[in-house]
Amino acid sequence: MTNLIYEQPLNEKIRSYLRLEYLAQQLQANVDQDHQHRCFDPLFALCELTERCDYRGEVLKDVDRQLFALSKWQSLPSIDDEQIELYISRLSAARDILQIAQRPGQELKQNRFLTALRQRFNMPGACCNFDLPQLHYWLAKPWHERQEEYQDWVSQFASLLTPINLLLELTRQTTIYQQQVANGGFFQGTSDQALSLIRVKLSSEQGCYPTISGHRNRYAIHFVSFDKQKHSDQSIEFELATCS
Amino acid sequence: MTNLIYEQPLNEKIRSYLRLEYLAQQLQANVDQDHQHRCFDPLFALCELTERCDYRGEVLKDVDRQLFALSKWQSLPSIDDEQIELYISRLSAARDILQIAQRPGQELKQNRFLTALRQRFNMPGACCNFDLPQLHYWLAKPWHERQEEYQDWVSQFASLLTPINLLLELTRQTTIYQQQVANGGFFQGTSDQALSLIRVKLSSEQGCYPTISGHRNRYAIHFVSFDKQKHSDQSIEFELATCS
Repeated sequence: MTNLIYEQPLNEKIRSYLRLEYLAQQLQANVDQDHQHRCFDPLFALCELTERCDYRGEVLKDVDRQLFALSKWQSLPSIDDEQIELYISRLSAARDILQIAQRPGQELKQNRFLTALRQRFNMPGACCNFDLPQLHYWLAKPWHERQEEYQDWVSQFASLLTPINLLLELTRQTTIYQQQVANGGFFQGTSDQALSLIRVKLSSEQGCYPTISGHRNRYAIHFVSFDKQKHSDQSIEFELATCS
Repeated sequence: MTNLIYEQPLNEKIRSYLRLEYLAQQLQANVDQDHQHRCFDPLFALCELTERCDYRGEVLKDVDRQLFALSKWQSLPSIDDEQIELYISRLSAARDILQIAQRPGQELKQNRFLTALRQRFNMPGACCNFDLPQLHYWLAKPWHERQEEYQDWVSQFASLLTPINLLLELTRQTTIYQQQVANGGFFQGTSDQALSLIRVKLSSEQGCYPTISGHRNRYAIHFVSFDKQKHSDQSIEFELATCS
């Protein structure tokens, strides 16, 4: 039985963070293993997103907000001091790096190999041998050489991605899962506190996936049967975490 | 030492064939090995190309032309009869299948899972968990199940891709490689016969890749140093095949 976790952001900020986190995971997968030219997709997606929007200011503000909250918790009794101190030191280190970092991806723009690739990568089937002979050449390099170069390109985004990972880790820890049942495949809820992230844990054996919608104080979950690709009318047991 | 083959089509038809052949190789790589969501890129690229253009008519005409040429060769002395007969039977079989096949990819349009995925796949980083919960569900299926489904999707393009592979195989066999030297990193040539494909075989140790241009009766090859990303002024030894 595989338990899958589905997440839905309830605000734009968390939405961006989740997207960047997802791309960071993809990059890491391509550092760990040779996926040939496929490694460029998340890299170029990240270039595109960070060009469209400079996330640094928002992330810095968010880190400061979290550091302030953590320092207040530290003074409370019955709190795991060590855990909090660890987060404070990790967040502070990430903030210091982000504060002096240049805009992520900036250096990659100077890389003529990557620039040439990027121009073609969004066209269907456009990284043939004859479209991009330089890619053909690059892919024939030994994996350890490519891995090193890729690692180097990826590392340029670390200053942004590290604090985002930490912030999401803290967001996910604001609450724990609770057992719930969706009668007729539908569940809704409200919260007095503003929510930022809904998490649904569901066994894949149920044969369905959730589509989640919501905003700040309310959310709704529809369960969709994968095989029929339509709303399930079954009672679905699942675990729910609503993170603020 | 790795010998790399670079190809350049000299007409639109071969250009399309090479692109489709490249995508066919990508599909096969994804049937052979689990590349997670990355398997959808070549599938959707193929959907897009075959929607834009119905290649069937041109391929059928080309197959007939080749069958006619092969049957003429058969009557010549000093010809490998067995080899020719094999090609004739493979081409005829492929033609029979293509003639009655519906337009490739047509059935995939009815697949709601694929349709939903395809709408998002070209956006940067847009196959997150929350964008496509159904993808998250699908990726958690055992590999052998996904492999079977993927194989089924891919098979819909076989009627088109099989004859194209054969046609390119025959094109590549029209000539053999010859040793050449590009003085100052440049080489050009002409041919009385109309050419359709230029092939350059080059050791990756030379540290450069060719950029080839041309049209019908003439072609030029520039060798570019990969590290410097600019024209090489060295003498480059390479092997050249000009296919008609």
